[in-house]
Amino acid sequence: MSFIHDDFLLSCDAAKNLYHEFAEREPIIDYHNHLPPKDIAVDRQFANLFEVWLEGDHYKWRAMRINGEPERVVTGDADPYEKFLAFARTVPHTLRNPLYHWTHLELKRYFGIDELLSERTAPAIWEATCDQLSRPEHSARGMLRRFDVRAVCTTDDPADDLNWHQQCADEGIDLGVYPTFRPDKALAVHQPEAWNAWCDRLAERAGVEVGGYAGLIAALRQRHDDFHAIGGRLSDHGLNRCHANFVSEAEAERIFAKARAGEAATAEEQDAFASNVMLEVGRMNAARGWTMQLHLGPLRNNNTRLARLIGADVGCDSIGDFQQAERLSRFLDRLDQEDQLPKTVLYNVNPGDNFVMGTMAGNFAGGGLPGKVQFGSGWWFLDQKEGMEWQMNALSNLGLLSRFIGMLTDSRSFMSVPRHEYFRRTLCNLVGRDVEAGLVPNEAELLEPLIRNICYGNAKAFLGLQKS
Amino acid sequence: MSFIHDDFLLSCDAAKNLYHEFAEREPIIDYHNHLPPKDIAVDRQFANLFEVWLEGDHYKWRAMRINGEPERVVTGDADPYEKFLAFARTVPHTLRNPLYHWTHLELKRYFGIDELLSERTAPAIWEATCDQLSRPEHSARGMLRRFDVRAVCTTDDPADDLNWHQQCADEGIDLGVYPTFRPDKALAVHQPEAWNAWCDRLAERAGVEVGGYAGLIAALRQRHDDFHAIGGRLSDHGLNRCHANFVSEAEAERIFAKARAGEAATAEEQDAFASNVMLEVGRMNAARGWTMQLHLGPLRNNNTRLARLIGADVGCDSIGDFQQAERLSRFLDRLDQEDQLPKTVLYNVNPGDNFVMGTMAGNFAGGGLPGKVQFGSGWWFLDQKEGMEWQMNALSNLGLLSRFIGMLTDSRSFMSVPRHEYFRRTLCNLVGRDVEAGLVPNEAELLEPLIRNICYGNAKAFLGLQKS
Amino acid sequence: MSFIHDDFLLSCDAAKNLYHEFAEREPIIDYHNHLPPKDIAVDRQFANLFEVWLEGDHYKWRAMRINGEPERVVTGDADPYEKFLAFARTVPHTLRNPLYHWTHLELKRYFGIDELLSERTAPAIWEATCDQLSRPEHSARGMLRRFDVRAVCTTDDPADDLNWHQQCADEGIDLGVYPTFRPDKALAVHQPEAWNAWCDRLAERAGVEVGGYAGLIAALRQRHDDFHAIGGRLSDHGLNRCHANFVSEAEAERIFAKARAGEAATAEEQDAFASNVMLEVGRMNAARGWTMQLHLGPLRNNNTRLARLIGADVGCDSIGDFQQAERLSRFLDRLDQEDQLPKTVLYNVNPGDNFVMGTMAGNFAGGGLPGKVQFGSGWWFLDQKEGMEWQMNALSNLGLLSRFIGMLTDSRSFMSVPRHEYFRRTLCNLVGRDVEAGLVPNEAELLEPLIRNICYGNAKAFLGLQKS
Repeated sequence: MSFIHDDFLLSCDAAKNLYHEFAEREPIIDYHNHLPPKDIAVDRQFANLFEVWLEGDHYKWRAMRINGEPERVVTGDADPYEKFLAFARTVPHTLRNPLYHWTHLELKRYFGIDELLSERTAPAIWEATCDQLSRPEHSARGMLRRFDVRAVCTTDDPADDLNWHQQCADEGIDLGVYPTFRPDKALAVHQPEAWNAWCDRLAERAGVEVGGYAGLIAALRQRHDDFHAIGGRLSDHGLNRCHANFVSEAEAERIFAKARAGEAATAEEQDAFASNVMLEVGRMNAARGWTMQLHLGPLRNNNTRLARLIGADVGCDSIGDFQQAERLSRFLDRLDQEDQLPKTVLYNVNPGDNFVMGTMAGNFAGGGLPGKVQFGSGWWFLDQKEGMEWQMNALSNLGLLSRFIGMLTDSRSFMSVPRHEYFRRTLCNLVGRDVEAGLVPNEAELLEPLIRNICYGNAKAFLGLQKS
Repeated sequence: MSFIHDDFLLSCDAAKNLYHEFAEREPIIDYHNHLPPKDIAVDRQFANLFEVWLEGDHYKWRAMRINGEPERVVTGDADPYEKFLAFARTVPHTLRNPLYHWTHLELKRYFGIDELLSERTAPAIWEATCDQLSRPEHSARGMLRRFDVRAVCTTDDPADDLNWHQQCADEGIDLGVYPTFRPDKALAVHQPEAWNAWCDRLAERAGVEVGGYAGLIAALRQRHDDFHAIGGRLSDHGLNRCHANFVSEAEAERIFAKARAGEAATAEEQDAFASNVMLEVGRMNAARGWTMQLHLGPLRNNNTRLARLIGADVGCDSIGDFQQAERLSRFLDRLDQEDQLPKTVLYNVNPGDNFVMGTMAGNFAGGGLPGKVQFGSGWWFLDQKEGMEWQMNALSNLGLLSRFIGMLTDSRSFMSVPRHEYFRRTLCNLVGRDVEAGLVPNEAELLEPLIRNICYGNAKAFLGLQKS
Repeated sequence: MSFIHDDFLLSCDAAKNLYHEFAEREPIIDYHNHLPPKDIAVDRQFANLFEVWLEGDHYKWRAMRINGEPERVVTGDADPYEKFLAFARTVPHTLRNPLYHWTHLELKRYFGIDELLSERTAPAIWEATCDQLSRPEHSARGMLRRFDVRAVCTTDDPADDLNWHQQCADEGIDLGVYPTFRPDKALAVHQPEAWNAWCDRLAERAGVEVGGYAGLIAALRQRHDDFHAIGGRLSDHGLNRCHANFVSEAEAERIFAKARAGEAATAEEQDAFASNVMLEVGRMNAARGWTMQLHLGPLRNNNTRLARLIGADVGCDSIGDFQQAERLSRFLDRLDQEDQLPKTVLYNVNPGDNFVMGTMAGNFAGGGLPGKVQFGSGWWFLDQKEGMEWQMNALSNLGLLSRFIGMLTDSRSFMSVPRHEYFRRTLCNLVGRDVEAGLVPNEAELLEPLIRNICYGNAKAFLGLQKS
């Protein structure tokens, strides 16, 4: 039997039934990822496994480095095939790491390959995949269609062009291709050089003068409108921890002016400024019925040497241990007091925060909307079988699993779509085992909506994307 | 087979044997709960499931809100049956949440109902239960007797009347009904208005003038005596984290005077004041052979809007992420240095603190008393199968499970007694699986005392309640 | 069947095969422990179970105290047999605690005893073991040889004599007996009395004047050389949390002078001073190809009363909840920026830090050395089945399990060697279950190197000890 077989991850009959009857054929809404919209707009074809697999995947880079591979074959000037060989050499060492599962799931689903990747099998696999990648069903869109993806939400800076999204919309393709509003750079008044350059770009893109704090908010609002017009319905925020030290408009203007003049804000000023900006974005989200995603807790770019050599986001991030509860509570409560708390998704990267997030979500529930504040799916380092199980168990114990909007890939690669399958198998295995243990009644009336809605129905209803 | 059957939660033969042979018929000491003593004294009959189930249960309110129910049918002016229907609608959405198990365990044990609760089955269940609730065996006392409850310890403010406890004692009922001394309000010098009103009530109740810090302590001591006289043997303390910044008597008097004059203490002053008061209460507990319970870690009343609308403790609390270890160590060590550390139970609401608590308990062991500092049973959000298992596994690995005083309901509802059954099944399942895996020898000589003592014997010996 | 049987801890056929085929007969490198080098040099014989088991084992003391035993029979003036009886009384109460497994594994492996220890069986077990302990195969070296231990690395202060290690080397015994450089006392400028005495001892031992900060570093370097000359290849550091607030040489000299003059450094000064010293030691390690071990997170000596009575490290330590991530990142990054980051092993005592450590290790990987920064094996309170499983699962999910250098005993007792067996069974059980669940391919080509290398090969290659 091949490693990736029909019942992969499904450890009992109840799990197999749930998956094959209810989960397997549900459509996909990938509501948070980092796919390049251009690749979808031009329907990119990939030349080889390096381009589609290794070019931008810092998970794989990281594993290769841990395996002792020199930087030359990771991100350096080695040629694509040499880099692929270095990855193939690493794969047998990734046993029990999610990469081992993802790698073989992707080889199986996209190319029908059952062989295990290693240095020995690498040459044949390289050749077979190169061949298949040249066919239309392996284009960017082809890879999405194959799994019935109905919508993808990319991640975009307010200062970014939305041309590629527009092109997709104009072309009228089936698939929803929507931008997500991620204004992280607006908060960085402690790094005035980059921040000022970004303010200038934003002003130009929005056609709004950014001469003060009010101007900044106006420009952000303009872009929020633009994102909305093209179908965007989510914002996204990458934060070590929430900002919730709100200050007066006047103080926000003062900090703005200081940073605009090129002087770095202090840590306290930055926190205050960011609190106010986030509050405004929260209000924009509420006003337009959007969903606000908070990604909390990483400690980024730890390795200064590699950051200098090859830049940020290259696989040198780790899990932080910041205190999250009080600030997150104050931020959500402030919006809630104004009746301006939007639909929200809380993601934590430290599994130790699962129970904080799972309970925090419940504090601001209600108002006629099921699952208004979501405890989001296992993120980044937690996006693996154990991490997903922990998140779903915490959500089950602390809230309502049945109202969960489920999986997203958070990926940069078009070959990551089968992670939805991976998630669904994990979900069905978890619930199926409970059924066999008598912890959950074996009633299709209860189980079918539970499974189908987590796979697709809840995200569709909750997010309200036009095409989905 | 019905959902709640004889071997519910028991996944192997060893587990079934342990439960049915050793655990099932042990009496119950419910040494920490929030039952209204008046209901026991007057032996209240409940009109319907709303009164006994929904009236005061913020766990259920929370689930209903997460399910999108409007506040009107949660705590608002909807009629009891309408609220019950809203809950019944929510129940199928609580799959994998402890509410799903508790709900059906309670329907089965008190009413013999096997049907799963949902909007469809709700009307018949409402009717059947109304009928049964009118019978004497469903009175407050009846519900306790049914499960051989020997003693209940309610939770009481030092300024509270003890009339209802006295009435129970005077009547000479079999059941021990004891108050627990919970002086949280004494610490709140940062909220001078409420604190002063409370001081006045305390002074009146104790018949001791509360004109200064020494007077406050004297009044608390008087009430400690009064609680003792009626059979109270435990204190209880709800704290975000321990106070352990002790100050001089003079400084405590200064802070007292400031707050008594209506001025709010600073955070630092409040911490110092609370440290000293807690130290005094610790000494009182030690002097009288009481047990001190520390409930650590929640972040309460996060939702200001709902707090304004309907008050505190309405289901908007969450798990905090405070640092616990150093302060807790200093507090216990200070009492221990004086040889005044009472028997103590440490409860944490963040499961990430399990290993801190489990090891801290061991630091102050000894003195001829087994399990002197207890790592308490899974509390609040952790009072479910997984949370109980984590607590028992941590306790097993870090201390002596065999010395554990076991379960309490922490409940406001008379229908919560079967949580002891739930705990016992979970305990027997955990140990039984270890037996089947060969991790624990299959020797009745070892297993029988382990199980029986955790269910009942340890609490009886440890707490020293008169009736138990 | 006896409690400790051939397949103890091995829950499926795949696990049994992995253990018996690949793990069981691998040699052992015990690269971190607290064995007394003198006992090896003189090849000590032990008079009885008390000497070899209870004399220095604060794990057992702690369990006895929790069981309510008075200090007299724990560390007091009771005679050895009385103390043994108190321990035997405690053992049945340690069910589910690692002590229960360790105790019976050690009785079985060293003495062939299958009986369960209790007060009833204690007399016969005492006699049988006394008898056997007088034989040469139960000498210190005998106990190591029995399990094919190739090298042990003890833990030594830079001011310590290395005579016993030298004597072992001179004698040319098969077994590598190496010191580990543990300069914790160099950092304690906040405790000037003890620190000054230690500086004097160091100066004398190194033959280097310690008149200033530069002198201190020179003396440490001299001892680092001496440790290296006798085969030492590791340093070890016991820290609540990392120091990473580096200051100028001049500032370090100033703090040195203050403490040398007998004045205690402030907390801030101590942190700064310790940061600089640790940086220097890191550089020494890098320059000589050593491995640096960071043991992070305990809260030590919580019980002042017992500390006064019987001293430090007596079983009153617990798990702390310090924030680790940012400081650890800064410390490692600083060395990495200079290209002076040595091979490193990160150990955490709070399981909540597993995911922080597991990801941090990956940030500084690369440079051609597989697994350069290791996430170390379950330590202290985590050195039990569940703790080991958590560590290996975290390492698997976040890094490369296959590059893991595996187990060490961290023990003070020669009877602790079977903890390597315990670890190997746990490892094989974990991987074996994954094989049976189809999560890992059942391919000997993948599994054999994985298991063998974690047991022995990785530590041998990584540490580069002369004899191993």
